[in-house]
Amino acid sequence: MATRDELAVEYFKCTKRERAVFEAGIKLGTVYHQFIGTPVSASNVRSLEKAIEEGVKVQPFVDDVEVRIDRKSLRKKRNEFDYQSLTGAMLDVRVGIRIEEIFVVARMRYVEELNYPLMFVERISES
Amino acid sequence: MATRDELAVEYFKCTKRERAVFEAGIKLGTVYHQFIGTPVSASNVRSLEKAIEEGVKVQPFVDDVEVRIDRKSLRKKRNEFDYQSLTGAMLDVRVGIRIEEIFVVARMRYVEELNYPLMFVERISES
Amino acid sequence: MATRDELAVEYFKCTKRERAVFEAGIKLGTVYHQFIGTPVSASNVRSLEKAIEEGVKVQPFVDDVEVRIDRKSLRKKRNEFDYQSLTGAMLDVRVGIRIEEIFVVARMRYVEELNYPLMFVERISES
Amino acid sequence: MATRDELAVEYFKCTKRERAVFEAGIKLGTVYHQFIGTPVSASNVRSLEKAIEEGVKVQPFVDDVEVRIDRKSLRKKRNEFDYQSLTGAMLDVRVGIRIEEIFVVARMRYVEELNYPLMFVERISES
Repeated sequence: MATRDELAVEYFKCTKRERAVFEAGIKLGTVYHQFIGTPVSASNVRSLEKAIEEGVKVQPFVDDVEVRIDRKSLRKKRNEFDYQSLTGAMLDVRVGIRIEEIFVVARMRYVEELNYPLMFVERISES
Repeated sequence: MATRDELAVEYFKCTKRERAVFEAGIKLGTVYHQFIGTPVSASNVRSLEKAIEEGVKVQPFVDDVEVRIDRKSLRKKRNEFDYQSLTGAMLDVRVGIRIEEIFVVARMRYVEELNYPLMFVERISES
Repeated sequence: MATRDELAVEYFKCTKRERAVFEAGIKLGTVYHQFIGTPVSASNVRSLEKAIEEGVKVQPFVDDVEVRIDRKSLRKKRNEFDYQSLTGAMLDVRVGIRIEEIFVVARMRYVEELNYPLMFVERISES
Repeated sequence: MATRDELAVEYFKCTKRERAVFEAGIKLGTVYHQFIGTPVSASNVRSLEKAIEEGVKVQPFVDDVEVRIDRKSLRKKRNEFDYQSLTGAMLDVRVGIRIEEIFVVARMRYVEELNYPLMFVERISES
């Protein structure tokens, strides 16, 4: 009898390598759109990084993940009402996806010369 | 010269007590709509609670906050693709707002007899 | 036998007027944290305003809502990868809450002199 | 002189076909995590579908997108406080990504036999 994973695989009309890249894209889209807008300051930046990392790890095929929020972009509170919301430009995220022998590393980070946060495939290896 | 807080106060056409209740509502709406959908499992539930708490504390007038995610509603992973997303029914959040002598406690929790997560004002005190 | 609304009311330890202000706060927190980060450009700005308005109207006690996204802040696409995400500074939201004879108007808009998007109570009336 | 698109391409350590699949994954992760939790009812379901579609179209390389929210899962309001939040199980999303001659169709939909919303690659073609 087929396991659920075997059933799921049937839906994919692509190679295993392409599936791994697809999963990597899902994870970066998830981080960006789940967490952008979250209140952030120097006091909670570390716990937010950790929560994003652990949220990503819960998802399928995630082998490893590192999240860095740029400390320099966290300004001092200017008044009682003031706080910052997490933006894409503050984030540097690297996620490793493994499906059997395929390993994909994808990344999102602000790229100066492009002037926006780029999501890209940094490496694909098979072992 | 007016400080920024003094300037901001001018915008509020209500009592200080009403303002405190308004701020409490903002915080609960924030928690619900920022974090619902976040990937959650037994492995990251504590770090997610902490990240929500610290995200709320960053916001203005927050004196105290407690976030509990119901462990019983976190099922075992059924397969590689499976993970849960945080829902309103899993959350119990209590936030304390202080504006000078006014203290408001507001809460969101799933109420069995109503069959949905209710946000309500638990207490207002002046001291 | 008590209706559900009568049961819910029991949870509120405050006046009806305070409850209306609390509900107004929830709605503005919801708009901010649900929609910040949404991809936006000149081509979808009107449909996004409408979707936010109709999403707010679904919520309890909402009598009226107007959402404006600042067109001037929507820059031209700079390249194929480029798009903008909705920010708080782009939004002007006014929501009217009615609970029986109480009517509350609350607003979120970017305030130049404060340099951030302020949520405030614009008016409370009884009729 | 290199255009911005040419600069961006340099970051991708994969084939064009893999890049198209990666972009498709980003879009589905975006839809899920940006819009899950949005207040939804029979009255705003169409405007929400349209807003999601137009939000996706704003993103790079999107050729086509269809969003369907399951009407059967939208229950009647049970009381004044009651409303539903959009869940993954309600969504059927198909997105077409084009990078030059590569065309990828990816989909997210609830799969009965798996009991969760699956994101998968439905088709890759070159023309």
